[in-house]
Amino acid sequence: MTTMINKLVIIGVGLIGGSFALALRRAGRVKHIVGIGRGTQNLQAAIELQVIDEIATDLAHALHQADLVFLATPVAQTTHTLQQIAPHLQANTIVTDAGSTKQDVIAAVRHHLPMANRHHFVPGHPIAGAELSGVKAAQADLYCNKHVILTPLAETSVEATELVKQLWRDCGSSVSHMSADEHDQILAITSHLPHILAFTMMNHIRHSTPEPEHLLRFAGSGLRDFTRIAGSSPEMWRDICLANREMLIMQIDAYRKELLTLQKLLHEQDSDALQQTFISARTLRENWLKS
Amino acid sequence: MTTMINKLVIIGVGLIGGSFALALRRAGRVKHIVGIGRGTQNLQAAIELQVIDEIATDLAHALHQADLVFLATPVAQTTHTLQQIAPHLQANTIVTDAGSTKQDVIAAVRHHLPMANRHHFVPGHPIAGAELSGVKAAQADLYCNKHVILTPLAETSVEATELVKQLWRDCGSSVSHMSADEHDQILAITSHLPHILAFTMMNHIRHSTPEPEHLLRFAGSGLRDFTRIAGSSPEMWRDICLANREMLIMQIDAYRKELLTLQKLLHEQDSDALQQTFISARTLRENWLKS
Repeated sequence: MTTMINKLVIIGVGLIGGSFALALRRAGRVKHIVGIGRGTQNLQAAIELQVIDEIATDLAHALHQADLVFLATPVAQTTHTLQQIAPHLQANTIVTDAGSTKQDVIAAVRHHLPMANRHHFVPGHPIAGAELSGVKAAQADLYCNKHVILTPLAETSVEATELVKQLWRDCGSSVSHMSADEHDQILAITSHLPHILAFTMMNHIRHSTPEPEHLLRFAGSGLRDFTRIAGSSPEMWRDICLANREMLIMQIDAYRKELLTLQKLLHEQDSDALQQTFISARTLRENWLKS
Repeated sequence: MTTMINKLVIIGVGLIGGSFALALRRAGRVKHIVGIGRGTQNLQAAIELQVIDEIATDLAHALHQADLVFLATPVAQTTHTLQQIAPHLQANTIVTDAGSTKQDVIAAVRHHLPMANRHHFVPGHPIAGAELSGVKAAQADLYCNKHVILTPLAETSVEATELVKQLWRDCGSSVSHMSADEHDQILAITSHLPHILAFTMMNHIRHSTPEPEHLLRFAGSGLRDFTRIAGSSPEMWRDICLANREMLIMQIDAYRKELLTLQKLLHEQDSDALQQTFISARTLRENWLKS
């Protein structure tokens, strides 16, 4: 099955939205791409970079006869965006998103879209990205060899899910399905918690001495890589953490307990158990990166 | 001042010891290098790679008329090594080490070396390294643009400290002095704690699900870099953590409190404070990496 997308509407033409447009264009799956966004300069750059063909001036016009709408605005704007597009969305237009959390998106969809549109809504999350943002950072191969998770609603049609799945595959991604609940739990562990820990590491340094800069002169590449994700957007991570608050709080609790266990081994100078703990951690990591 | 080292003895010819030998050889500061170690194959490789000129067969012979001894064995072997070399060490031989913790090294030196040798002992720590080990990983520029911290004893002579400082500069490093206590505290924060947190992250994943491998399929480059240091040697990190146990326990305590504070902000959904916390963390990191 190869379906041509005659009209693709990208809402939020940044790194995520722009890369999706570029990848589908390269795959020859799309004819015309309309971009919607708040930054005029950014949209102008998107035209110049041939990421989009047209800047939307009017929402109703942009959504008219759209085959696919891709929501790539920040997580916190999802509700607002859904409210805005709802009156203009045709029943047969497929809508998908790229939000880092899924339960909140589904709740907003249930609240703001009528059943006809929910049939064609496919919640998604490409696990890709960078500290960079804006359309100038967009690249056609951002999603190559990356995972995309789809969390269809009970009412999402199989056809809509299949189409979105096929498009992500055309971007070079491998696609998995799961419940929004499972998605949010997995991401809380593999992504949201590490971000919290990295931000907290830098704040711990800030609070540990009146001269954190002096202390950091003696830090090496270990700390640099460990805290790379603390260079991410504070606004974006505030919103992700709040959106997945409950799952994240549970993960922080569990992590603190794990840390306490290790601290006890240090107290007790339990050399064997300490080494075994480090071996188990390293082995899991090695097996992951080998696979 | 350029002093030629006529005879350099490297005890532990791995990544650290081998790279020191290569750097000093390249700088033209050393004539003859003797290697001491337990792995015959590794020492043979060190000869073939021209890292050392001679494999020591007898400790007394190796230390005879040595200008400089470089201790680069694992932290846990320091005491044993000092005991072994003490009877053969000449009073004018300068000894320095590369251990990741310094208070324990100084305690061992005070216990095992007579005053004459303590005059010539310069505790040191090059902040460089990699997950790799063994002499085959050694490289002449490992210490280029890296920091080396020296923590001289009260009884260490200024001349000994100056010589070791100059040699590290010849390796391309910048050299700082501080007390062993300050060193161990700084390293507990910038290095030992992040290692503990990275190992603990992998163990948290191990304990969070019966199928951690499934969960890790959806992990991205963020987690990979965050846990890079969890790929480090379990034996080495067991020993470092035990050697700097008290400082590390205090740092884990403080970090757990910092994490609890952030968890509370999540509970309270304090959006502004959350964002400010992330901004402060990111700003400190950016300033550090810019400097």
